[in-house]
Amino acid sequence: MIYLDNSATTQPFSEVLQTFQDASMQYFGNPSSLHSAGMNAEQLLTKARTATAKLFSIDPKEVVYTSGGTEGNNLAIKGTALEHVSRGRHLITSQVEHPSVLEAFEQLENAGFEVTYLPVDASGRVSPKEVQHSLRKDTTLVSIMHVNNEIGTVQPVEEIADILQHVPHTYFHVDHVQGVGKVSLDFAHPGIDLCTVSGHKVHAVKGTGFLYVRQGVSLSPLFHGGKQEQSLRSGTENVPGIAALAKALRMSLERSDELDRLEGLKRRLMFAFQEMPGAVVNTPDDASAPHIFNVAFPGVKPEVVIQSLAKKGIHVSTKSACASKLQQASPVLLALGRDVETATSAIRVSLCFDTTEEEIDQLLKALHECLPEFLEVMGAKNA
Amino acid sequence: MIYLDNSATTQPFSEVLQTFQDASMQYFGNPSSLHSAGMNAEQLLTKARTATAKLFSIDPKEVVYTSGGTEGNNLAIKGTALEHVSRGRHLITSQVEHPSVLEAFEQLENAGFEVTYLPVDASGRVSPKEVQHSLRKDTTLVSIMHVNNEIGTVQPVEEIADILQHVPHTYFHVDHVQGVGKVSLDFAHPGIDLCTVSGHKVHAVKGTGFLYVRQGVSLSPLFHGGKQEQSLRSGTENVPGIAALAKALRMSLERSDELDRLEGLKRRLMFAFQEMPGAVVNTPDDASAPHIFNVAFPGVKPEVVIQSLAKKGIHVSTKSACASKLQQASPVLLALGRDVETATSAIRVSLCFDTTEEEIDQLLKALHECLPEFLEVMGAKNA
Repeated sequence: MIYLDNSATTQPFSEVLQTFQDASMQYFGNPSSLHSAGMNAEQLLTKARTATAKLFSIDPKEVVYTSGGTEGNNLAIKGTALEHVSRGRHLITSQVEHPSVLEAFEQLENAGFEVTYLPVDASGRVSPKEVQHSLRKDTTLVSIMHVNNEIGTVQPVEEIADILQHVPHTYFHVDHVQGVGKVSLDFAHPGIDLCTVSGHKVHAVKGTGFLYVRQGVSLSPLFHGGKQEQSLRSGTENVPGIAALAKALRMSLERSDELDRLEGLKRRLMFAFQEMPGAVVNTPDDASAPHIFNVAFPGVKPEVVIQSLAKKGIHVSTKSACASKLQQASPVLLALGRDVETATSAIRVSLCFDTTEEEIDQLLKALHECLPEFLEVMGAKNA
Repeated sequence: MIYLDNSATTQPFSEVLQTFQDASMQYFGNPSSLHSAGMNAEQLLTKARTATAKLFSIDPKEVVYTSGGTEGNNLAIKGTALEHVSRGRHLITSQVEHPSVLEAFEQLENAGFEVTYLPVDASGRVSPKEVQHSLRKDTTLVSIMHVNNEIGTVQPVEEIADILQHVPHTYFHVDHVQGVGKVSLDFAHPGIDLCTVSGHKVHAVKGTGFLYVRQGVSLSPLFHGGKQEQSLRSGTENVPGIAALAKALRMSLERSDELDRLEGLKRRLMFAFQEMPGAVVNTPDDASAPHIFNVAFPGVKPEVVIQSLAKKGIHVSTKSACASKLQQASPVLLALGRDVETATSAIRVSLCFDTTEEEIDQLLKALHECLPEFLEVMGAKNA
């Protein structure tokens, strides 16, 4: 199997699974318990939290463990909006965010908030100037993703943070789910207040993640109860999952010297598809992540491409996994200005550190083999 | 190590960890993906969901996977209250619920809801009649735990369900976290609408659980996004954790013939402590779960008892793990009518299916050895 759907989810590193296994057996105590089984679990939790904080040059107190990216995004967005509602009801995001961000905002709109959805340019990029122009006295939150999950565009989040660090009444949340380990981000930038990380996108076990919450930022929790995670996220800590996450993050970040190689693989895809008749490359040439490549075959159903490749043992995806079963145009591609036909026929190839040159060769070979069939479909449709 | 804190958390069964490990490697795909890695993961998810539903005689569509008990309780309580706010703002619970229930209600009070906290009798039991008398036209939810996490009292939830099944505008949520696998509950009772289960209390991996949501019951979700779990709980499904949970639940329920043995062990503790000078047994004689036993040594700090036992390799706890670091009287014991001294000096012994007669012998032996020291402390204090 050639797995090129790493932006949907990744296979855990075997060392990470071993950590999970060992911690589950040896550190199974509840960190809130006063006996040694509890204290040992608490020590492992502290060790993992400290190690994770160090990787991102933040304080261990700023790491709030969650069950993953959807929880992190929901906690950051709803938590900030609800906590600071007395200061305002205006929120800003972009048109190209992940469903867990867009739907959280939609929910807040239903609750009486006003949301500005910023447009993007043809590369899928938000303009920092437009962020600045959209700010109002009652804007309490701006939420912009770091790396787009469908096309890989890197947003200018640090430029936006430069602006927002001078706007004390407006918090800035970055959805870093697709960026972590692939495109560096300065969590400690004084303009970034909240940042979501998911474990299963970086070879950790599923059901893990953390939300970076800058010290001093107050949030309304989604879960109330035993006051774990400084009362921001109650519930018995998933210590084995948290230890496994620390390991996966360390292992991913240690491989940053391989990012140039990944960028090279993505460039190969880009050049190959730019030459391919009928293909429309959606990933921008400049400032895109090294592991995500998006191309459309207008007129061809993406399921056909996916199934043709699957028969050859190659796994790619349509748009976002979280929206892949909804047969509709990608809102991300529409926001870029693509037509509906292009926006309904995109496939995404997403790499991981273990992706090889040979796998990309095989993908290209397979696509060249399928191409005549695709062209026929497209011709028939356009005839 | 003799681990007698199984109500705080349990060690996963080794077979359950193996399932998690295998699923993490072989079924790591995102169930939302259209290729075979995704479809295989989705099939495993369906298989686990179907198996779990069968164990409780419910429909697979009624199983909403969560990250655990705190999430389940918060989703059930806030989700119901917020979804049905147009029909009323009155809610009913008891004074002896888990912090994840009480704090969720407190949060709703801050949001303008009115909550009736029902008292309990000296055994910790809620009266079904009082539930009935507290119902109002604007009552949208009653939430009562099945088994008390500190003292093991079994609440008459099926009697309460008998009443509430005839009150269509009031939903009934049961916090079944401490009951599952130990005290049977008829999920399919027409009066029960919502029921919370946590994985790590039944030897599953941490960060897993499910909320039973009767078909036709609508909830306001805590997480919005990719519309997984019938839109009630968005986020990539933790398929390995869900498969491991199905296995742990099956293994636990298959051991129901050992419940009499556990009840016998609890009885032994009860008789021994009823005879022990200075000890106050808090677990009721009648209708208590077979795996939870609570006793106080008024005047002795519970930390002293816990540490004395810990030195002998025996792990027990104070009250709820989720409240164990807060040095205050147990609200549960105060609600029973115990004095503050008794309510601040309780320890909980909680068993699992692997607990042996010999372990209970050793606990009793160790306590008898510590007793003179305790009595001295108590004497000094009372002098």
